[in-house]
Amino acid sequence: MFPKNAWYVACMPDEIDSKPLGRRICGEAMVLYRGPDNKATALEDFCPHRGAPLSLGTVQEGKLVCGYHGLEMGCDGKTVAMPGQRVRGFPAIRAFPVIERYGFIWVWPGDAEQADPAKLHHLEWAESQDWAYGGGLYHINCDYRLMIDNLMDLTHETYVHSTSIGQKEIDETPTTTKTEGDMVVTSRHMSNIMAPPFWRMALRGNNLADDVPVDRWQICRFTPPSHVLIEVGVAHAGKGGYDADPSVKASSIVVDFITPETETSIWYFWGMARNFNPKDKALTASIREGQGKIFSEDLEMLERQQQNLLAHPERKLLMLNIDSGGVQSRRVIDRLLAAEKRVIPIAVAEGETP
Amino acid sequence: MFPKNAWYVACMPDEIDSKPLGRRICGEAMVLYRGPDNKATALEDFCPHRGAPLSLGTVQEGKLVCGYHGLEMGCDGKTVAMPGQRVRGFPAIRAFPVIERYGFIWVWPGDAEQADPAKLHHLEWAESQDWAYGGGLYHINCDYRLMIDNLMDLTHETYVHSTSIGQKEIDETPTTTKTEGDMVVTSRHMSNIMAPPFWRMALRGNNLADDVPVDRWQICRFTPPSHVLIEVGVAHAGKGGYDADPSVKASSIVVDFITPETETSIWYFWGMARNFNPKDKALTASIREGQGKIFSEDLEMLERQQQNLLAHPERKLLMLNIDSGGVQSRRVIDRLLAAEKRVIPIAVAEGETP
Amino acid sequence: MFPKNAWYVACMPDEIDSKPLGRRICGEAMVLYRGPDNKATALEDFCPHRGAPLSLGTVQEGKLVCGYHGLEMGCDGKTVAMPGQRVRGFPAIRAFPVIERYGFIWVWPGDAEQADPAKLHHLEWAESQDWAYGGGLYHINCDYRLMIDNLMDLTHETYVHSTSIGQKEIDETPTTTKTEGDMVVTSRHMSNIMAPPFWRMALRGNNLADDVPVDRWQICRFTPPSHVLIEVGVAHAGKGGYDADPSVKASSIVVDFITPETETSIWYFWGMARNFNPKDKALTASIREGQGKIFSEDLEMLERQQQNLLAHPERKLLMLNIDSGGVQSRRVIDRLLAAEKRVIPIAVAEGETP
Repeated sequence: MFPKNAWYVACMPDEIDSKPLGRRICGEAMVLYRGPDNKATALEDFCPHRGAPLSLGTVQEGKLVCGYHGLEMGCDGKTVAMPGQRVRGFPAIRAFPVIERYGFIWVWPGDAEQADPAKLHHLEWAESQDWAYGGGLYHINCDYRLMIDNLMDLTHETYVHSTSIGQKEIDETPTTTKTEGDMVVTSRHMSNIMAPPFWRMALRGNNLADDVPVDRWQICRFTPPSHVLIEVGVAHAGKGGYDADPSVKASSIVVDFITPETETSIWYFWGMARNFNPKDKALTASIREGQGKIFSEDLEMLERQQQNLLAHPERKLLMLNIDSGGVQSRRVIDRLLAAEKRVIPIAVAEGETP
Repeated sequence: MFPKNAWYVACMPDEIDSKPLGRRICGEAMVLYRGPDNKATALEDFCPHRGAPLSLGTVQEGKLVCGYHGLEMGCDGKTVAMPGQRVRGFPAIRAFPVIERYGFIWVWPGDAEQADPAKLHHLEWAESQDWAYGGGLYHINCDYRLMIDNLMDLTHETYVHSTSIGQKEIDETPTTTKTEGDMVVTSRHMSNIMAPPFWRMALRGNNLADDVPVDRWQICRFTPPSHVLIEVGVAHAGKGGYDADPSVKASSIVVDFITPETETSIWYFWGMARNFNPKDKALTASIREGQGKIFSEDLEMLERQQQNLLAHPERKLLMLNIDSGGVQSRRVIDRLLAAEKRVIPIAVAEGETP
Repeated sequence: MFPKNAWYVACMPDEIDSKPLGRRICGEAMVLYRGPDNKATALEDFCPHRGAPLSLGTVQEGKLVCGYHGLEMGCDGKTVAMPGQRVRGFPAIRAFPVIERYGFIWVWPGDAEQADPAKLHHLEWAESQDWAYGGGLYHINCDYRLMIDNLMDLTHETYVHSTSIGQKEIDETPTTTKTEGDMVVTSRHMSNIMAPPFWRMALRGNNLADDVPVDRWQICRFTPPSHVLIEVGVAHAGKGGYDADPSVKASSIVVDFITPETETSIWYFWGMARNFNPKDKALTASIREGQGKIFSEDLEMLERQQQNLLAHPERKLLMLNIDSGGVQSRRVIDRLLAAEKRVIPIAVAEGETP
């Protein structure tokens, strides 16, 4: 159960630079590639000739050439040519709206008629010279909502990431959660604490002392369909915390784009955007490596949690104060799902996976 | 179809010494760990907060701490504490009765009310200085009853274990089988034969000549729910066989505790208890290694047999004289299953896997 | 859906030389071994005693001895003996008709009454000193008919095998397809082209210039149940093409025996028979290695095509002129399937997998 009329991250740009990419997104088997003028394109991964996956083919002069018998597919899902054949009557395959922006390839797996570029989530940091970004991709066998829960309740850092970003003060400091339209915000501010190892590294990366007390903050923002952007940072204590001058803090935005593959698996695009020392590529690489290790610690927990829930569909889970972020995010999702159900056109309904 | 109101071996003590262990037993996903005073404890492997597996957590001062958000679970299945939460209203999870004795952790996966320590199988050799024990654990994808059949009909030694304990005389010597209450006993006594390689090693281990004729015996005892203890041994021929003086024989007890994981998979705890040279740890290790190799020879046969039976549920298997031990053991099991069906309380029925 | 009353290749002779072989063929789990007088034999892989797979046993003096409890099985599916047992009343298992000829073991998985050696496909090259043969076996997860399609439409060579046997002229040259009784023949003749790498190697292997224009031909012959034999070759251009004198050409027969394992998996016996330099074993090995690499390129395409078709059972595939070979072959198969359905005896129907 995921909204289909929304922009999801499909892949990183470099994943389709040299050859087509096959990837299932929201239940739809897609082939992603660069068509005419290098435009990122997404089609059904199904050759209308004999059903071969087009992602095993090649791109030639912007046309996707089936790797089985050479059918040439256009970026609109209509066959352009095939050796020795008249192709006019060939059935078309679905073309999915695509946008390449902010360093990602975004796809709209639902009704193409409703695809509106204006609905794309704006990422200011992605277009500014003052920011640097590094990230990666994990495949995880869990419902995308379990990952939203995970990211909207950071008390898990103390347990899952105890050696890097976790610390007891997270548990001890309550959060506030509020829904603003379709956005859910969960905030936590900790004062006068010692920074955990990851943030000590970040302080040093910003040429700041790492052995003095700091104020630390976590502001998690969920927006549909399944983005969680988290402002995180530390400032030397008593200098204003979240609002302190950049010269006394290390802060960044944890970037989480969660793309459902199936009902119980996701493509998890994770990363970090920072606005200190943005030109320092070695720092970008070292942060990326550190984050990659930390975020990999969630995988087993999420997959085993998913298995437990599948084995016990009848059980009601608790909804504590710390779960408010996830609970309110699910309410937003449920509202979108209900809206899709009311207006979904028949053509799209046929394309959906059951 | 396995009795649930019975003591099964859950694990070896050292499996829970350093961290919690997740293991499915009789269809129940359990977490096993050492609670207060190091007491072996078994709970449902399901955190009441969000369904995470508790076996991914840690034990702190006898409390099981969930590795996701720090819920502290007590050994009775009731939540003790959770950072920033009042836990009194949290739903309890199932606690399974546990006994640590005889060098094993035993669990009662059924109705806790009926769990009676007096029903634990008594193992005299496990508490005597005159005996030594070595063993191991295999996971096998077969119905536990196929393993009971295997152990109650040792003619398979001639074929599956032809290079170690098998010999033609096993096939040629008939067995007697009888049921005494819930115990089934199948016995075979061979006279004046040459010992096969494994028993020659055992004779040498007891400082006895291995190149002279011996009498050999196999007395298989099934007891519910799925234990098979087998007295095996050889004595120099004509000295009394099974009843010969310890100075002229090498004998031991093959120990088989078969714990169903699911309907078609088992945890197979195998081992050997002996009362000759019990202080010789090198001998214990060498017997254990030899037995491990021999018992591993059954795995492929049992798993492929299981697949064949699943593919042909309609076929009736033969029940020959050599199968009497397995057939009578199944009758005991069927009687217990019928008894459970009559009296099983609703609370337990809900906990059962369908 | 595959004809069962037909001769299929079950295995290569050397696969059963040292021990029994378990292999599922047309849904039937079989054990293949050499019985009395080394005669290739196929039985159900199911011991009538306790359901163990007989393929885990051994062959002793032409009898198949079950590896579990020593039951001795005869080549007619009737138990011959078992230690300590009277076996006369033991239920028989199915025996499948087998022929060893042409360097293959052939089996008839359907009604044994109808098994007629005269229906075995005649392979002239396999019995002649003037020919050499080399080949191999692949397991592929696809419907056997997808492989027939593949082999009856060689335009895929240009795309799947672009670096070895593919060339643009294949696409540009139309084929003719005709059905003669149960045989379907698709032919393509290309004139005055440059040979692709594999055929240059073959020309050199026949001591012919490889840098001059050639005529090239492909004559694909489907015969039931699922054999595709393809005459392929090149001759120096203008010397008569297919009919040119052997001294100016390199030609061979691509041999494809496709044995269904299940509805969506096959045992693919591939090879090449040639009548130039037949004594040159190094050439046989090098052609075999080259063909093995080329034919392995089809695997991913066929398996992913199968997955696509399973995900979209409702879609109709195109049937273009290039697909005529496959389409007409399927018509022959459908006719055989319909005929089997009309006359299939009850005894066989019971043995069929559902």
